[in-house]
Amino acid sequence: MNTIFLKRSTYMLLLVSLLTVGRSARAQNSSELNVMPLPAKSQLGTGALKIEGAFTVAFTGYREARLDRAGQRFLLQLNHQTGIVFSSNPADPAKATLLVTTDHESKPVQDVGEDESYTLDVTPAGGKLHAANPLGTLHGLQTFLQLVAISQNGFVVPAVSIQDQPRFPWRGLMIDVARHFIPLPVIERNLDGMEAVKMNVFHWHLSDNEGFRVESKKFPKLQESGSDGLYYTQDEIRELIAYARDRGIRVVPEFDMPGHSTAWFVGYPELASGTGPYQLERKWGVFDPAMDPTNEKTYKFLNEFLGEMAKLFPDQYLHIGGDEVNGKEWETNPKIQAFMKSHDIKNNEGLQAYFSQHVQELVVKHGKTPIGWDEILVPGVPKNIVIHSWRGADSLAAAAKQGYRGILSNGYYIDLGWSAARHYVVDPMGGAAANLTLEQQERILGGEATMWSEYVNWENIDSRIWPRTAAIAERFWSPQNTTDIASMYARMETESTRLEWLGLTHRSYQRKMVQRMAGSASPDELFALLTVMEALEPVKDYNRETTPGEEPTSLKPLNRAVDAVHPESEVSRRFSVTVDQVVASSCKDGAKVAELRAQLSQWAAIDGHVQPLAQHSPLVEDATPASAAFSQAAELALTALERITQGLPLPEALKKQQIDALNAFEVQAHRSQLTLPSLAAFQKLIEAASTAGACAPGK
Amino acid sequence: MNTIFLKRSTYMLLLVSLLTVGRSARAQNSSELNVMPLPAKSQLGTGALKIEGAFTVAFTGYREARLDRAGQRFLLQLNHQTGIVFSSNPADPAKATLLVTTDHESKPVQDVGEDESYTLDVTPAGGKLHAANPLGTLHGLQTFLQLVAISQNGFVVPAVSIQDQPRFPWRGLMIDVARHFIPLPVIERNLDGMEAVKMNVFHWHLSDNEGFRVESKKFPKLQESGSDGLYYTQDEIRELIAYARDRGIRVVPEFDMPGHSTAWFVGYPELASGTGPYQLERKWGVFDPAMDPTNEKTYKFLNEFLGEMAKLFPDQYLHIGGDEVNGKEWETNPKIQAFMKSHDIKNNEGLQAYFSQHVQELVVKHGKTPIGWDEILVPGVPKNIVIHSWRGADSLAAAAKQGYRGILSNGYYIDLGWSAARHYVVDPMGGAAANLTLEQQERILGGEATMWSEYVNWENIDSRIWPRTAAIAERFWSPQNTTDIASMYARMETESTRLEWLGLTHRSYQRKMVQRMAGSASPDELFALLTVMEALEPVKDYNRETTPGEEPTSLKPLNRAVDAVHPESEVSRRFSVTVDQVVASSCKDGAKVAELRAQLSQWAAIDGHVQPLAQHSPLVEDATPASAAFSQAAELALTALERITQGLPLPEALKKQQIDALNAFEVQAHRSQLTLPSLAAFQKLIEAASTAGACAPGK
Repeated sequence: MNTIFLKRSTYMLLLVSLLTVGRSARAQNSSELNVMPLPAKSQLGTGALKIEGAFTVAFTGYREARLDRAGQRFLLQLNHQTGIVFSSNPADPAKATLLVTTDHESKPVQDVGEDESYTLDVTPAGGKLHAANPLGTLHGLQTFLQLVAISQNGFVVPAVSIQDQPRFPWRGLMIDVARHFIPLPVIERNLDGMEAVKMNVFHWHLSDNEGFRVESKKFPKLQESGSDGLYYTQDEIRELIAYARDRGIRVVPEFDMPGHSTAWFVGYPELASGTGPYQLERKWGVFDPAMDPTNEKTYKFLNEFLGEMAKLFPDQYLHIGGDEVNGKEWETNPKIQAFMKSHDIKNNEGLQAYFSQHVQELVVKHGKTPIGWDEILVPGVPKNIVIHSWRGADSLAAAAKQGYRGILSNGYYIDLGWSAARHYVVDPMGGAAANLTLEQQERILGGEATMWSEYVNWENIDSRIWPRTAAIAERFWSPQNTTDIASMYARMETESTRLEWLGLTHRSYQRKMVQRMAGSASPDELFALLTVMEALEPVKDYNRETTPGEEPTSLKPLNRAVDAVHPESEVSRRFSVTVDQVVASSCKDGAKVAELRAQLSQWAAIDGHVQPLAQHSPLVEDATPASAAFSQAAELALTALERITQGLPLPEALKKQQIDALNAFEVQAHRSQLTLPSLAAFQKLIEAASTAGACAPGK
Repeated sequence: MNTIFLKRSTYMLLLVSLLTVGRSARAQNSSELNVMPLPAKSQLGTGALKIEGAFTVAFTGYREARLDRAGQRFLLQLNHQTGIVFSSNPADPAKATLLVTTDHESKPVQDVGEDESYTLDVTPAGGKLHAANPLGTLHGLQTFLQLVAISQNGFVVPAVSIQDQPRFPWRGLMIDVARHFIPLPVIERNLDGMEAVKMNVFHWHLSDNEGFRVESKKFPKLQESGSDGLYYTQDEIRELIAYARDRGIRVVPEFDMPGHSTAWFVGYPELASGTGPYQLERKWGVFDPAMDPTNEKTYKFLNEFLGEMAKLFPDQYLHIGGDEVNGKEWETNPKIQAFMKSHDIKNNEGLQAYFSQHVQELVVKHGKTPIGWDEILVPGVPKNIVIHSWRGADSLAAAAKQGYRGILSNGYYIDLGWSAARHYVVDPMGGAAANLTLEQQERILGGEATMWSEYVNWENIDSRIWPRTAAIAERFWSPQNTTDIASMYARMETESTRLEWLGLTHRSYQRKMVQRMAGSASPDELFALLTVMEALEPVKDYNRETTPGEEPTSLKPLNRAVDAVHPESEVSRRFSVTVDQVVASSCKDGAKVAELRAQLSQWAAIDGHVQPLAQHSPLVEDATPASAAFSQAAELALTALERITQGLPLPEALKKQQIDALNAFEVQAHRSQLTLPSLAAFQKLIEAASTAGACAPGK
């Protein structure tokens, strides 16, 4: 094919699709189950259980309404996965296709470290699920659902014997609902996702500088002045807690203090260390306002408030935040300075420790166990608190050595746009934790993925959480030696499909957002724009907000290309895998070379079809620096590929020039707040071209 | 390009996308608004109103809670369309971007023929919406939302002056919830769709042979025995009615009798004319069971039941069905036969008239106006009833001549899978109605699209209703001379996008269903299958259920290709338009010829990539007869196109042979319960090839 023709054609765009990739799920090691997280132990049997309209499920042993609802939900999910209609009438245990036995109840308020194990045995004749208590039962039902697959005999579950239990007792997802409010139905569908991958803690980051999202009946100005009307009523919170319990999930509320607390002060400025008045922050970061640790009224308020919240949230743990206090309000308040002097408090850290100690006492007084970010760990803090590490595994290990329990979030910040693989290799027992004694290691309870909401709202939050969080969930549940990245991706993509059947929108949102950008584009123009969007990613880490002139605020629309692209481009990931294979095999695989050529031809041409749309839409125009950079980078890679296959080595000087050009394209893409995830693969092709010769012409 | 290469390639599939099509919305007559239904009168002004974060809406004049809720919903929809965040705080009318003035209240129970007019004036400085009552206000808000479009200046509403009111007062959508139960949230999102296109009657077909879907507190066995547990509680019904009223929609319940009533008899066999016992029908059609019109107890029961329902449903109209009684139970019951003799009732029609008269009296007694299908119109029936014509416009005109009011559904049976264009040309004032006097014409109140639910469930019902029902809604609302098919399609596609933003799933469902069919296919295999699914349609009319061996029942899964394809393939419709243009212009437009060639090349090759999937999934296997037929038919059309462009006329004998082959392919596609919507276009190319020469080579 003539790539120049392709590039210049005003009539048609050759979109090249490649049918030798994929089949990854089917091509997997056949002894591995297509389940995520992988079970602790499993043994495939012979044959399979057919899933047909006559399928029934029955519950025996310990019974409760939660299990009945789980059974109904199970049948509904099975219906969504297969389209088959099942009877919801109670089944005769003696004849049920799947017999579920639960030994006894779980605790009335779900606790850390409860038995979550189950066994699942499936033969062609039927299935048996057995668990000590409903928590294991819930997990086993999800495993069964994940095993359902279509085969030449219709929908089946392979014969298998599974003994499963989690590696860590604390497997959490934190959602920040302060910076952008997330409506209850969106939270609920994400709890469905958590249940699907056996996560058991929903950490609800309920207050921050940008919003206070809980109704307080004792201090109603908290939500009235602090939320723009966007908060959860206590009834709604109770509803959500019940929804979570039905899915084996604890709900841990967080009220961040003494910093990250501007929203409290809009209604109650007397809590603050500054003079006020205060307004909700519309930007994000570390701000000056902080609670006044030297005022007895602060503790009186917090005592009443925490008492109210301790009743509202049944979980044993209450998260008090404690992170990122810059101390400026403390330093400029003479009364506070005088107090520090008179109490021999040497610095801001000391003052925060003083505050923290008082708040922890209040939490304990109301019957709860405090949990807080790294900063709450100061000398002399009681051993019962839990450290939530945003700083890293080493800090967690240090805490464990001192006798503190902890959970890890460093490495699981899903707002940073990292790949699933990058999160997957982070282990709560990694780093210094690997050298702890067994007793110390037991203090490491697990971890939490954290969804900070600077750049997410109801529309795109699912796509920032899923499917990558499924890989993190596997890290928390499966044996430590579960580390095969290729297997992880294959199973994650299957689970991703299932998550959309459960009601999550992490895939389907994209088309709607791209349609909004494209306005009255034709279906084919829309397709071109979608193709670009599918191949690019948002800038990583904190690069978006640090761009000069960007000035992000919570009132800015999240309707741009950067909001519409997936954090991890699946098509780019597959492309990179193929490049590695081609380079490693010295281009011996002609089919894969053809596949690369086709993909690069499409990408090289695609910007030509996006640019005209930009004239009709500033939202498309915003994406065109990245779109142009992408096509030009792909063109370089395509030329390199042609050199490789024709055995025309790329001169060293040209190679350097082209790699510089690639880097410039990446910089250009940043103007759209986008990044080119295939850049490294492009560079590999260019480097391979400069040492070509291994690939004979015509291959 | 070498099509043989394309067909045989085992390495890659060239998917050809064509960028000269489309832009239809932008290419429209610029004096026509991109709004559906088109307003009665409109005049475009100069410039446009920008929609930005500072946009506000304020309500003046008559106020009520319904309008406040409408304002909140309006802002939410505007947010969904643009991604822009708007303040929901009450706006100062003096400064509001959009000022809404409502003169007075509408009736406490929405009535037929209430004023629904509004005027909307937009200038670059702001908008003014004015309506007599909230019904017009609701319509005007939707028009405003439809006018929002992205432009080079961001989101704008063009300056425009609109005076609008409906052509017909009864613009309905009927949903049958008996054959497949449709959950309440699905009904609700379809009411959102109705509001979007200004429909004002939700006709709820609540009982039939296959199910009784309303809770009766007086006769609980109706739902307990007649619904498999799938029914709406009275609280849910009240919730739905309030939801509808908020959207300017009346709710007309239907209880079909004396036939289509098996579900009543499962719990109350004493109502029937046969001996019972009865079970829910799992198939569909006309069955023997019918109420006993000769038993006083029947009327006693109906009196109490209708009294209960008359209270539950506030609408003035109550639909009593009355269609399709085969009379067999009457003929085999000696008591009924004796009764007919003694009462001088000559035949089944007479007996039904006797029944109908009694039931109508009961409906009137409970303060309601009866409406029923054609069959209820018998000599002597009071003039206040409304005839619902499933038989056709002539039958409706005949009723109007006799003084009866009526609505039309014949021609609007959206379950038959017709194109939007075919529904669009049907006019309630068509046929014999065109010759009625003005007074008689006024008796024709409008019409209803009817969604019979033999082959729809929660998953695909949206796709059977939308977007085609928007075209029917335009027929009911817009001036009679609104008949431009191309304009209709362009505006319908724009509205279709908006409907998905409102929460409907008529587009997004398809990918999920195809993924279920494809199982663990790679993204590219999935793309190939999707491409076929997008180009095919379900068999039309009643062809699905009349296929030998198909034996449809309400318990069969709706998870097949026939359930996953759209009733009207947009890609096929566009292809056919291009074929017409190419043939009409004697292939002078090289770009369009290239477009056809590219599309046909893709289609001719696609089956090769679907067949391998069939080995792994019976659901894909089920589609392969159609997929193979489709690719082979496209190959014939592609060869014809090559002959045309090369000036090689197709010999007459070959032409006949190929057209026969096309017809055989269509028959083959029916084995998958699918049809080839491009067949006529393929045939046009073959016919053009046989008279080629007009198209010079090389063009």
